[in-house]
Amino acid sequence: MKIVLAQHAGFCFGVKRATTMAFEAVEGAQGTICSLGPIIHSPQLVARLAEKGVQVVEQVEDLPDARVIVRSHGVTATELEALQQRGVAIVDATCPFVKKAQEHAALLGREGYDLVLVGEADHPEVQGIVSYARGGAGQVYIVGSRADAEALPACGRIGLVAQTTQSQTNLREVVEVCLGKCRELRVFNTICDATTVRQDEAARIAREVDLMLVIGGHNSANTNRLASISLALQPRTYHVETAAELRPEWFFGVDSVGITAGASTPRWIIDEVVESVAKLGK
Amino acid sequence: MKIVLAQHAGFCFGVKRATTMAFEAVEGAQGTICSLGPIIHSPQLVARLAEKGVQVVEQVEDLPDARVIVRSHGVTATELEALQQRGVAIVDATCPFVKKAQEHAALLGREGYDLVLVGEADHPEVQGIVSYARGGAGQVYIVGSRADAEALPACGRIGLVAQTTQSQTNLREVVEVCLGKCRELRVFNTICDATTVRQDEAARIAREVDLMLVIGGHNSANTNRLASISLALQPRTYHVETAAELRPEWFFGVDSVGITAGASTPRWIIDEVVESVAKLGK
Repeated sequence: MKIVLAQHAGFCFGVKRATTMAFEAVEGAQGTICSLGPIIHSPQLVARLAEKGVQVVEQVEDLPDARVIVRSHGVTATELEALQQRGVAIVDATCPFVKKAQEHAALLGREGYDLVLVGEADHPEVQGIVSYARGGAGQVYIVGSRADAEALPACGRIGLVAQTTQSQTNLREVVEVCLGKCRELRVFNTICDATTVRQDEAARIAREVDLMLVIGGHNSANTNRLASISLALQPRTYHVETAAELRPEWFFGVDSVGITAGASTPRWIIDEVVESVAKLGK
Repeated sequence: MKIVLAQHAGFCFGVKRATTMAFEAVEGAQGTICSLGPIIHSPQLVARLAEKGVQVVEQVEDLPDARVIVRSHGVTATELEALQQRGVAIVDATCPFVKKAQEHAALLGREGYDLVLVGEADHPEVQGIVSYARGGAGQVYIVGSRADAEALPACGRIGLVAQTTQSQTNLREVVEVCLGKCRELRVFNTICDATTVRQDEAARIAREVDLMLVIGGHNSANTNRLASISLALQPRTYHVETAAELRPEWFFGVDSVGITAGASTPRWIIDEVVESVAKLGK
């Protein structure tokens, strides 16, 4: 059985940076260290960090008096303020591309645009980004799809920002709809290059193989999106978090398997999956 | 023979305004009065104004020492400056929507965007609008179509403005392409509502009738666009400037005729065409 492993699979720049910062912080730590929410959407990596002593806390008010790591997805403006008021030492592992999106949202809010964020309403990255536009004169809307965009009211000026892991196609469709809703449309294309590169490569491989595996946290937005892009092109697409989820019957009569992984999937998990698939194919 | 006359045919707000200003100016004129270029793209109306004493001059340097009417399409920043330096009295009949597009172009130029103007490169309105962005840090590009947009280089920040008589479809396509060429795309949708309303109605009527007539100057951008929108839906579409161009053989076996007219087509010309068609259909 042929295995086609995506060249661009696993950790992106922002995740690599956040992970390194977290390990460095915990290794040099004096006393407790906490991460506000899981640092990245990989339960396996979060478990490794927990073994080293990084405790995940969901809300600022639950933090002990400890150093705190801000996860790669960032936090809301209110949470950041609360952290600063608590006076705790902050290790800010927010992905620089997410930070850029937050800054664009803040600018659009200040300049009175209605903000349209293209992304998933309940994702922490999205909640973080839109929080920076609140308090401006404009409204804030989160749209996940063309259908959501079509339900928007007519606006004067729309400022548009995307969750960094969105697909360019989805962004394009929302832009098209918004263009018909306003006189001025200002779009910051904040989709990260790593996202686009991974998505394009996943689509190319999905077309070529008999079966596609997408590895990554089930809570990972970018992995879910990779899986849905692949599924549209290759009905035999499976999203697994680890090698333990692989099932031998998937591979009966399969000659070629494509493998890709989300931006928050550690290398060791990818390697384990590749090894397991190779064994199953023998 | 049934005649379906578009409700939104003929003079738009800007043309009506410019025409009224021109007639008022010439009626109250002391001495010579000139129009820099034809005031609107209707040779018949320009001829009527000429009878009253409005002389069309193409270049500032050819102007006698006279009052000058700036046409509905506006002039370039350089021409306006030259007029001001000449010290002649100016009657500015620039359409307020065109003026708005000029202001947006100026803003985008000042703020360092590369300007993309969606329109016809040799149209005076377009030459006027882009002139206000020149001198900024960014480049200036005029694109007529999706294909033109695809040939653009990658840019950092694109500011986009449209000729007021463009179709929304063409704008949408150029926006889609530009979105893939830059990190920030700021679109001022400067297509005039009157244009959209006329185009939508022309498309609706073109689908319903056996033959479509589009009346307006052969040099009129918005009339040409109405004709091309109609032609795509109704192969029997004819663009005529006056009733004199109608040919009886067009109407053999035709049960219904749709009629629309560009934004610079005077009412009396529309009425003449309707009357002639009614006679031919008897």
